[in-house]
Amino acid sequence: MRPAIDLNSDLGESFGAWRVGDDETMFGLVSSANVACGFHAGDPITMLESARRAVQHGVALGAHPGYRDLVGFGRRALDVAPGEIAAEVVAQLGALDALARLAGTRVRYVKAHGALYHRLVADRAAAYAVVEAIAAADPTLAVLGPRASEIEAAAVATGLVFAREAFVDRGYTADGSLSPRGEPGAIVDDPAAAADRALELVETGGITADDGSRLELAPDSLCVHGDTPGAVAIARAVRVALEGSGLRIEAFA
Amino acid sequence: MRPAIDLNSDLGESFGAWRVGDDETMFGLVSSANVACGFHAGDPITMLESARRAVQHGVALGAHPGYRDLVGFGRRALDVAPGEIAAEVVAQLGALDALARLAGTRVRYVKAHGALYHRLVADRAAAYAVVEAIAAADPTLAVLGPRASEIEAAAVATGLVFAREAFVDRGYTADGSLSPRGEPGAIVDDPAAAADRALELVETGGITADDGSRLELAPDSLCVHGDTPGAVAIARAVRVALEGSGLRIEAFA
Amino acid sequence: MRPAIDLNSDLGESFGAWRVGDDETMFGLVSSANVACGFHAGDPITMLESARRAVQHGVALGAHPGYRDLVGFGRRALDVAPGEIAAEVVAQLGALDALARLAGTRVRYVKAHGALYHRLVADRAAAYAVVEAIAAADPTLAVLGPRASEIEAAAVATGLVFAREAFVDRGYTADGSLSPRGEPGAIVDDPAAAADRALELVETGGITADDGSRLELAPDSLCVHGDTPGAVAIARAVRVALEGSGLRIEAFA
Amino acid sequence: MRPAIDLNSDLGESFGAWRVGDDETMFGLVSSANVACGFHAGDPITMLESARRAVQHGVALGAHPGYRDLVGFGRRALDVAPGEIAAEVVAQLGALDALARLAGTRVRYVKAHGALYHRLVADRAAAYAVVEAIAAADPTLAVLGPRASEIEAAAVATGLVFAREAFVDRGYTADGSLSPRGEPGAIVDDPAAAADRALELVETGGITADDGSRLELAPDSLCVHGDTPGAVAIARAVRVALEGSGLRIEAFA
Repeated sequence: MRPAIDLNSDLGESFGAWRVGDDETMFGLVSSANVACGFHAGDPITMLESARRAVQHGVALGAHPGYRDLVGFGRRALDVAPGEIAAEVVAQLGALDALARLAGTRVRYVKAHGALYHRLVADRAAAYAVVEAIAAADPTLAVLGPRASEIEAAAVATGLVFAREAFVDRGYTADGSLSPRGEPGAIVDDPAAAADRALELVETGGITADDGSRLELAPDSLCVHGDTPGAVAIARAVRVALEGSGLRIEAFA
Repeated sequence: MRPAIDLNSDLGESFGAWRVGDDETMFGLVSSANVACGFHAGDPITMLESARRAVQHGVALGAHPGYRDLVGFGRRALDVAPGEIAAEVVAQLGALDALARLAGTRVRYVKAHGALYHRLVADRAAAYAVVEAIAAADPTLAVLGPRASEIEAAAVATGLVFAREAFVDRGYTADGSLSPRGEPGAIVDDPAAAADRALELVETGGITADDGSRLELAPDSLCVHGDTPGAVAIARAVRVALEGSGLRIEAFA
Repeated sequence: MRPAIDLNSDLGESFGAWRVGDDETMFGLVSSANVACGFHAGDPITMLESARRAVQHGVALGAHPGYRDLVGFGRRALDVAPGEIAAEVVAQLGALDALARLAGTRVRYVKAHGALYHRLVADRAAAYAVVEAIAAADPTLAVLGPRASEIEAAAVATGLVFAREAFVDRGYTADGSLSPRGEPGAIVDDPAAAADRALELVETGGITADDGSRLELAPDSLCVHGDTPGAVAIARAVRVALEGSGLRIEAFA
Repeated sequence: MRPAIDLNSDLGESFGAWRVGDDETMFGLVSSANVACGFHAGDPITMLESARRAVQHGVALGAHPGYRDLVGFGRRALDVAPGEIAAEVVAQLGALDALARLAGTRVRYVKAHGALYHRLVADRAAAYAVVEAIAAADPTLAVLGPRASEIEAAAVATGLVFAREAFVDRGYTADGSLSPRGEPGAIVDDPAAAADRALELVETGGITADDGSRLELAPDSLCVHGDTPGAVAIARAVRVALEGSGLRIEAFA
């Protein structure tokens, strides 16, 4: 078993007066924070606060760029040309990185958000456009995403560090995609169950899919959601379980 | 008389399908380009194209941040708290700088846009907040703005290079502010007249105000507008006149 | 004492995935709902849900237009020309009214939001532009706002019904403006105290200002806030107290 | 041959300082104006000006709603749920209709814009959701769109008047869809050729497709583009040709 694992969460998803999630607590539980960069959530004050929290808690700061779609929270497919989404991703990470400098840190990695995250699993042209643009902007950045995806292939081909993530609070189908919301086991909202899944993922490198088959995921990072009512309880249970089994919680980047 | 002068213009002010100005030509006439960063104009593709044009024409790239006000083009006063506008300025310059890296260059200076430009003349708290945030993000950046302003004082106090600009195509009142649009002489749209004013500014360090009095401006840079129908003709006439008098057109930054 | 009083609240202030307030409960407690129309808060789905809730609870539907400023929630002064803000108000109320028809109701009145609300107290040109545009769009609409304001004068001059509101959960200064947030008594967050103030307002037509002087407000409607943690408790206490004293809670429009 | 035909164009597509098209001239050439409603283009001032131009020129005012995508001008597919796009369409037409009342007219019909237009050809759930919402908001509204589409079927089923349009400046494939931009004959930019196509469409009820086959379109309205450099010349040539052949140019709605 590996001696350390990363714990990441999507944070900094407020926008102006609209607040979401208990970021203050969540930053204390994770080792990597994926911070929204203004296109689907996150205004510059929220971004700066998130960078400051990352410094305060010793958390690695990641850019979490999404489609330009505030009302849809970046969750809806939008047919942006590969070259344009690449430029949009770079603009977003650049905005967060400049604010991070104010806070005394830097963006260390990029994880795509929402519908863009899902697109980069299978859309080769978009995945390469995005990854090559990230590398051209800053070749020291890492990429966080799902295994066996076009974005993983693009990162490897481009020479960027790629970290694989697995979700502790979502069920998987046999082909490695997430179980559709609404199906039994799609959402794991019991902290103890999430902690068990986290241990299984780290100890065995995989998880049992919804049809009972074994799924290899080889995660470098475990993702806990940050915006649900039970987010803090799940993150805390996962962290306690992992540390209790002797692992260090440590940023991959 | 000085051997060289900078010529700057507000460029990159398109947004998606809406195009404004003849940027292709204007980039060939100026030495510094103030490029909109997405809040009042400028989308990532336009920003990236502008950075590429800056490289191609050997023009210094400046960030031109404004209020978050697309429909008002950043020209309307908006009561943003100093700390928030400082974060917004840094987010904008960071976005442009990351895209500039893709194009093989960097942002070299910052010039505020529209209503924010005017606010930073007199609002000390905002001027210091913005300048200190710029310095914290990147202390090698210069600031371009009007003389005898709070932003000049803040830049000097913070240790940033400050370049003073004067407008060749706008009239001045005796106190150094621009003549209100609509008054006689407020807009100089005759290329020859603008060229004469450019020469007067460079040769004497000042200009005749609208009441006939002498106004000292000591400009490091002359601003020509980029979005008017006659912009190219004015910029060309100004450049020809300056070069004809033996000056080099050279970026200040 | 009057036999009935209106109770209004700012509702429908969510935007996409960002939810604010317990609208489901608040619609059951008020007689008039000021619903955000998309410029500072409120997306079409939220607007439609709000209109449906108004029908379900027998609540009068009001348009609550604000400045085009999502990140600032319409709370920041923005220098929009009178003719433009008038057009923006009409566009907002038209959007809500069309969705209201889907829900089987209509917009019955308009109350400005945030910084626009405050502007229309004193800016005569803007107040007349807005009110005349409302009247031209639909002369049967009423206007809800503060007493002794330019918007009251404009509504009266234009022939629109004007309803005066007073705040049960905010302190007043002697000149009739709200006590600045941060001063003692500026925010009334104790439900019993708010209920007492509601009774005082209805029974006496005025309230004691923060310097102990008597302030006449002659309210047609009492405003309770909808977006604070204690909003529901305050609204419930106010409603119970008013009904307990024999008043009907009834829409003014 | 029919005695009259409608000529429609997409107008009012400016946004703030960004101006597009020669609307002043185009409103004098068409009988129906599809006016953008703020989501992909069009601000309230532009919408109001367009409504006033419609009154001045005796042109029927149509709402031209699109996806909420300013930077993409509504031309990119966006996966909005049917119920949400229906609410967004109603919000947009309501906004324009309220401004139309200020100008002394009303919205008479709805034509979807860009990617939404194309979606409603084939997406039955979205087409019915949109049309039923329009009917619920105002059953006197007509719908303008392509023949043999889901939106035509939905309008007929819902009891709304449906008008079929054909494009005079775009080529067609044999299946009735537009020839992809970039293929020969996809764009007809010669005014005389466009005028010939307009006559063929009106006199025969159809057009020759790009493979030489005959395509029946039975148009009630001919669409001329409003935002291209040659738009005015094409619209003028089409109008002159149609009137020269004895037809009246007359709104369908």
